[in-house]
Amino acid sequence: MQVEGFIQDGGKFLFGRLSPGTEFLSGIDALCEKFNVQCGSLVGCLGSLSRAVYTYIYPAPDQAVGIKYYEPFILETPAELISAQGTIGPNKGKRDIHLHCVMCDMNGNFIAGHMLPGCIVCATMELSILVAPENSIERSFDDESQFSIFRYNTLTNIKEEKL
Amino acid sequence: MQVEGFIQDGGKFLFGRLSPGTEFLSGIDALCEKFNVQCGSLVGCLGSLSRAVYTYIYPAPDQAVGIKYYEPFILETPAELISAQGTIGPNKGKRDIHLHCVMCDMNGNFIAGHMLPGCIVCATMELSILVAPENSIERSFDDESQFSIFRYNTLTNIKEEKL
Amino acid sequence: MQVEGFIQDGGKFLFGRLSPGTEFLSGIDALCEKFNVQCGSLVGCLGSLSRAVYTYIYPAPDQAVGIKYYEPFILETPAELISAQGTIGPNKGKRDIHLHCVMCDMNGNFIAGHMLPGCIVCATMELSILVAPENSIERSFDDESQFSIFRYNTLTNIKEEKL
Repeated sequence: MQVEGFIQDGGKFLFGRLSPGTEFLSGIDALCEKFNVQCGSLVGCLGSLSRAVYTYIYPAPDQAVGIKYYEPFILETPAELISAQGTIGPNKGKRDIHLHCVMCDMNGNFIAGHMLPGCIVCATMELSILVAPENSIERSFDDESQFSIFRYNTLTNIKEEKL
Repeated sequence: MQVEGFIQDGGKFLFGRLSPGTEFLSGIDALCEKFNVQCGSLVGCLGSLSRAVYTYIYPAPDQAVGIKYYEPFILETPAELISAQGTIGPNKGKRDIHLHCVMCDMNGNFIAGHMLPGCIVCATMELSILVAPENSIERSFDDESQFSIFRYNTLTNIKEEKL
Repeated sequence: MQVEGFIQDGGKFLFGRLSPGTEFLSGIDALCEKFNVQCGSLVGCLGSLSRAVYTYIYPAPDQAVGIKYYEPFILETPAELISAQGTIGPNKGKRDIHLHCVMCDMNGNFIAGHMLPGCIVCATMELSILVAPENSIERSFDDESQFSIFRYNTLTNIKEEKL
């Protein structure tokens, strides 16, 4: 079993809100930029979207870990953004966000997945982020899974260990 | 793009549990009251409900941001409370909670939404809250969206900025 | 109403990742073990599973709180792990994890529940945990609900109160 990670004392939080019409991923990026947050974990996210763009996996036995992602799904009607979780860190020097959301459409149906650019905030989006140290979480191409994956604790000066 | 928020050092957590029969929103309020938490973000919530009252949005093109909420839906059978996220802060001087939950009924069906008063805890409810400074998050009527919305960083003495 | 809990200053976070093929619950346990985390709350969890084992409740009016759990459901195809929340603490001296997940199968269908041993990480699993003090959260058989339940603040030397 491989387990990697780090522990952080005296945690910092970033709280914020996106207003109507904001592109969702760009808004999270702008909030992090303003408060100089490079790495972290999105642990609170509720509001609504007027447009959602997302994907999810399907089995592909010929792939390294047996999955592929569909081409983007686009929902052009408003959806309640029930909750979300995400990981934030640099990817080739730019801040990148791995974001998963649960949504609910106007009929109460489940919509969820890995979010892509093009989602638009409807009424509001309330965000809570656990702030991690700089360079503690970083995304890069991973040979094992053949995906771009966040790795932990690759370049840190914090209390840490790796199994 | 409008982005508002604040960053907080040395985060505080509130952990707690609600017991069977507790009204859900009142229980979160009582936990916050006991530990003098006025503002925060609910980031962990799992357990079960014996009754759920909730709503979600539907398109209403004549409204400011194009949505309305349905009249309450009521589920009178037990449901697994899979997870929840929420925002806590004062609204006209009283603590208010914006709470979104994902539930699963006895057939494994998705139920989710914006929770309303009248939900009852079944076996247990385990809660984790990120505590924000007093007066850092506040709910009031928002002209832009025409909803009562939590705003961030309106009256604070903490390290903060607004775009 | 019964409400129990505790508040903690200067929060610690544990961030980490599980790699392909890792048994999910064992991986979380190993991450906690490595960083000496006995109690906490899982508040961020996103990735994918190649196998999922889970259950959820159904009504059982003859039981103490009116519910029972189904025998395990097993999903043998890959699923997006949209998000998860969990509680971590000792149960009879061993670390135990109460874990609820939202998943999405290859058709975008909702799958969720109380996770059981046997889940296998597919491409990755990114984890964020709020670390609670030792002995602050503990699982034991609960007479009221007739389930094994996490209780808060039973043996602590931290700032705390109980209603």
